[in-house]
Amino acid sequence: MTKKPIKAYHSGAGLVETNYFTFAEPPHELVLQSGKKLGPVTLAYETYGELNRDRSNAILVLHALSGTAHAAGYHTPDDQYPGWWDIYIGPGKAFDTNKYFVICSNVIGGCNGSTGPSSINMETGNPFGLDFPMVTIEDMVQAQYHLIRHLGIEKLLSVAGGSMGGMQALSWSIQYPDKTNSVIAIATSALLSAQGIAFNEVGRQAIINDRNWNGGNYYGAWPPDAGLGLARMIGHITYLSEKHMHERFGRRFQEINPDTYSFKTEYMVESYLHHQGIKFVDRFDANSYLYITRAIDLFDLNASHDGSLIKAFENAKANFLVVSFTSDWLYPSPMSKEIVRALRANGKNVIYTDIDTDMGHDSFLLENSALEKYIANFLKSEYGKIWLDNGTVQ
Amino acid sequence: MTKKPIKAYHSGAGLVETNYFTFAEPPHELVLQSGKKLGPVTLAYETYGELNRDRSNAILVLHALSGTAHAAGYHTPDDQYPGWWDIYIGPGKAFDTNKYFVICSNVIGGCNGSTGPSSINMETGNPFGLDFPMVTIEDMVQAQYHLIRHLGIEKLLSVAGGSMGGMQALSWSIQYPDKTNSVIAIATSALLSAQGIAFNEVGRQAIINDRNWNGGNYYGAWPPDAGLGLARMIGHITYLSEKHMHERFGRRFQEINPDTYSFKTEYMVESYLHHQGIKFVDRFDANSYLYITRAIDLFDLNASHDGSLIKAFENAKANFLVVSFTSDWLYPSPMSKEIVRALRANGKNVIYTDIDTDMGHDSFLLENSALEKYIANFLKSEYGKIWLDNGTVQ
Repeated sequence: MTKKPIKAYHSGAGLVETNYFTFAEPPHELVLQSGKKLGPVTLAYETYGELNRDRSNAILVLHALSGTAHAAGYHTPDDQYPGWWDIYIGPGKAFDTNKYFVICSNVIGGCNGSTGPSSINMETGNPFGLDFPMVTIEDMVQAQYHLIRHLGIEKLLSVAGGSMGGMQALSWSIQYPDKTNSVIAIATSALLSAQGIAFNEVGRQAIINDRNWNGGNYYGAWPPDAGLGLARMIGHITYLSEKHMHERFGRRFQEINPDTYSFKTEYMVESYLHHQGIKFVDRFDANSYLYITRAIDLFDLNASHDGSLIKAFENAKANFLVVSFTSDWLYPSPMSKEIVRALRANGKNVIYTDIDTDMGHDSFLLENSALEKYIANFLKSEYGKIWLDNGTVQ
Repeated sequence: MTKKPIKAYHSGAGLVETNYFTFAEPPHELVLQSGKKLGPVTLAYETYGELNRDRSNAILVLHALSGTAHAAGYHTPDDQYPGWWDIYIGPGKAFDTNKYFVICSNVIGGCNGSTGPSSINMETGNPFGLDFPMVTIEDMVQAQYHLIRHLGIEKLLSVAGGSMGGMQALSWSIQYPDKTNSVIAIATSALLSAQGIAFNEVGRQAIINDRNWNGGNYYGAWPPDAGLGLARMIGHITYLSEKHMHERFGRRFQEINPDTYSFKTEYMVESYLHHQGIKFVDRFDANSYLYITRAIDLFDLNASHDGSLIKAFENAKANFLVVSFTSDWLYPSPMSKEIVRALRANGKNVIYTDIDTDMGHDSFLLENSALEKYIANFLKSEYGKIWLDNGTVQ
């Protein structure tokens, strides 16, 4: 998930900070889909732009597996990289912060300021580890709903996200139809394929096999870095297309004069994956990786609606922009088309585009002029406009 | 790599046994591509059918990454499963043992009776471990050539294999053009893609990360089973097509009444992969997995011939049958087509077919009537016939 350095922190969304909202204090815990209770719950979030007077310009942006609340701008003037979706969020960008109030919420189960397995379990005084309850995409959305109410927003102009963020965006339209004016669902699916589950599972096994994982009780000790790094390496293979990998790395060696017959010699593609693995362990918690990948596995809008995706969207009121990428083999285009068919069967307004690119699943994080235009134009269009209760278009 | 139980051991190739041939005794060691020397060298092999009087009916069959010399028949009357290519080898089968003398040779670097990293290093009296020299596909073929000479065969009627076995078969036509009458190269490539290298590398990392791997010095102690099992799980994802995985497992749970919100609950696809991992560690050595996957990575008929695949086949004299499978995404059809183009550019006789199937890379191991017919007809055809030095067709 490559980030693009931007020259000056004072362009774009500028200097931003992460905020934290704590709610669901006992006895008012969040009741999860499993029936288990979780509370207190903290969500990390950031906002960009200004909420307008009638609070009708709020867009909720949701991240993928490894994302954070830091979607745009810089935390300090020295920051090398901006937030993960800075290409798309800022003044004059697709999510134009001159017009819109953009909120990015982290997810429960995560490890970047929100309540997750590395948080302190109030009952024991120790980190939860595997005592953390299983959370689902729907649980993440329920927690975000508390945040949105806390921010005084009655109805979201749009809910947008790619990959797991797209799953959350779709869920918003189903769980909170009256609060969701429009949905932008990118490189996502109503359910993960068997192959997707398989890749998530080998990633989890890499963590569980790590000598330092210790049944999830590694906080305060050496974390299962090798396992988490390997999980990330496996993930990255699935984020890139075979064609892009071929063009970017081919069969070239990392070294100029490689010792071909040594295990130490790396092909460029190996070096890239190792680098991705090493970078990741500095910023992510292995148990969170287990919980969040499982939440993705469990997401299934068919199964949760009597086996009917059409039924899933029956009560949705939003207008939809659905985007897939031709070379995305993790969330392939036919999965987006299934969503579009189900929405249209319900008479919903849907714009769909299958953007032609070689960049694979990662495309939603990369600069892509077609994606920019589709988001910007959708938000400007009749479909993107908010209808308040008095029925007037804002 | 599913095997198909066959009712009676006395049908097909019948009861067979593995033989061992040792050669390259010092000071006559095998000189490897790396320049290092290896000797003595043992190859495990099996034969099926009878060598004819003029020794012109011998077919060498070569296995993939995890294969063994045991390609057909049963070792004991109680054996549950026959050899790995029993579907294709036996009386009246594609490799018809009523007509042909079929030899299956194991590879150096392996762990099923041939010299590899788990063999005893004569210099130290201990298993080689990572002191074993890096071997290449070309080295494997060189060792097989010694076996073929030992068996008194001047020219092979055909050399056949799938996946890594296909790489060896192609190499035979280049390294020993006068000894190779025809080649049957199935689900293979002249070089592995960057994505293929990436998958091999994450498999190797799974082994190296295992607490029991110990720098490759685990012989006599507990082996790195979890890591090797995980490597196998990763491999199996790439052997199946997404479509086949969907049809076979979908999103079904293994249990009838799953506890959805438990990490212990398995999807069927997870259970399948775990089972494949567990089965594998009983029969394979982790260090051999490292060496053989690296040999596959290093194979590159372009690079080894001045960047020209056409040049690679310049001196080949064989006739070729090249087979790919439409749903094979590890060795996709365009890679076979590149081989075919290079052969035709050299004026070679080539039969090529892209067999339509959903079974993915594994197709070459599974029952496939089209594959059966292509092999059988190719061997019966003018292209499959052997020309001895006197120029007469046998």
